[in-house]
Amino acid sequence: MPRYRVTLEYDGGPFSGWQRQDNGPSVQAALEAAIYRLSSEDVTVTGAGRTDAGVHALGQTAHFDVAKDFAPAKIRDALNYHLRPDPVAVIEAGIASADFHARFDATARHYLYRLVCRKAPLVLERGRAWHVTHPLDCDAMHEAAQMLVGSHDFTTFRAAECQAKSPVKTLDKLNVSRVADEIHIAATARSFLHHQVRSIAGSLKRVGEGKWKPRDIGEALAARERARCGPVAPPDGLYLVRVDY
Amino acid sequence: MPRYRVTLEYDGGPFSGWQRQDNGPSVQAALEAAIYRLSSEDVTVTGAGRTDAGVHALGQTAHFDVAKDFAPAKIRDALNYHLRPDPVAVIEAGIASADFHARFDATARHYLYRLVCRKAPLVLERGRAWHVTHPLDCDAMHEAAQMLVGSHDFTTFRAAECQAKSPVKTLDKLNVSRVADEIHIAATARSFLHHQVRSIAGSLKRVGEGKWKPRDIGEALAARERARCGPVAPPDGLYLVRVDY
Repeated sequence: MPRYRVTLEYDGGPFSGWQRQDNGPSVQAALEAAIYRLSSEDVTVTGAGRTDAGVHALGQTAHFDVAKDFAPAKIRDALNYHLRPDPVAVIEAGIASADFHARFDATARHYLYRLVCRKAPLVLERGRAWHVTHPLDCDAMHEAAQMLVGSHDFTTFRAAECQAKSPVKTLDKLNVSRVADEIHIAATARSFLHHQVRSIAGSLKRVGEGKWKPRDIGEALAARERARCGPVAPPDGLYLVRVDY
Repeated sequence: MPRYRVTLEYDGGPFSGWQRQDNGPSVQAALEAAIYRLSSEDVTVTGAGRTDAGVHALGQTAHFDVAKDFAPAKIRDALNYHLRPDPVAVIEAGIASADFHARFDATARHYLYRLVCRKAPLVLERGRAWHVTHPLDCDAMHEAAQMLVGSHDFTTFRAAECQAKSPVKTLDKLNVSRVADEIHIAATARSFLHHQVRSIAGSLKRVGEGKWKPRDIGEALAARERARCGPVAPPDGLYLVRVDY
């Protein structure tokens, strides 16, 4: 019974998130349905990151077991055929070792948050970025972001419904950079709390607007109070870029 | 009666093209309808480039006359309000001189053609690029492209229905470059023939696949025969990037 590992791209817009649920379409269920169409087997797919409704992926990683043996290129092409017209694609597929676990074996998850700063509404990037109608101070945002790098109690930047046992996480990288009329926030950690990147992005936007000073981010972190978080950024701008093992 | 000049972004997907027509939605008609909702005036909008069905714009330029005086930021925001939910946005608006003409005064038009080379279907870039399932030789494409730069009779790369009086055009730039898993073809000229960029892109793809040698492009050009053109590339990958005056 081979274990397959796949790298997935998806448009999170039409989905209620990665995780299978009763009241809405999920990426996981779309992939499980495609596997069923291919192999007539009911399988459970495990993803590295349980992305929320509307959050996109450029490189989500997942694993599943199927009794039948398929060549990697064959399972990639067949799943892509059966996934249509859902906006999910298998970019790569391979055979993994029998004990590979997409969620627990991940050593780093890389996220990108995109903000587009302009007066005009988004057209080509509609649903793919956070539309901000005023300029943001990228340098101040980057300065503030550095206060969050390292091991901290991230209670301030954690959703109330977060199920993680501990609010302590280690943020390896949090870079804010300007790319044309966009601000990119690149975040890397072994694992993240629920809504952590979007909570951070929403708070950094406050800094970019000048409503908060960079040091306010450090004080919000130190307070360990959810009420000190800025408004949570919308899911449209968030991408799970890559998972390392 | 002030003349306004606007810079437009649009997703060409849902439109039958720039130009107003009886049997399908057009970008021109969407903009004219938005102007009517704002000013109750029936105006004709003139665009720099009559993009085809499915072709996108990052920076189309257009002009129109409205009796009422509006501040540039006001007309931009009001038109964007009235354009919703059509995927068209006014990026910039300004008052032009009374004799400014978006089409005839243009000194250069810049187009981009995007090809994405990968086995998996497009998801986030669906409708926004030409999906090619095999790798392309970017260097060979660029070498071939240089044979088209300059003043030539482009009959080979011109649609049968093209209405231009002369098939002679001057291509100022035709650069082919690799950007991650994409091939970008950047084309600049004062003006283009109908389907010229897509005809060139389809022929350069043949070179990238190794089906044509770079010199075959020069021979196809010299033949001045439509039958020597490669398959016309789909509109999805084409963007009118900018117009110079």
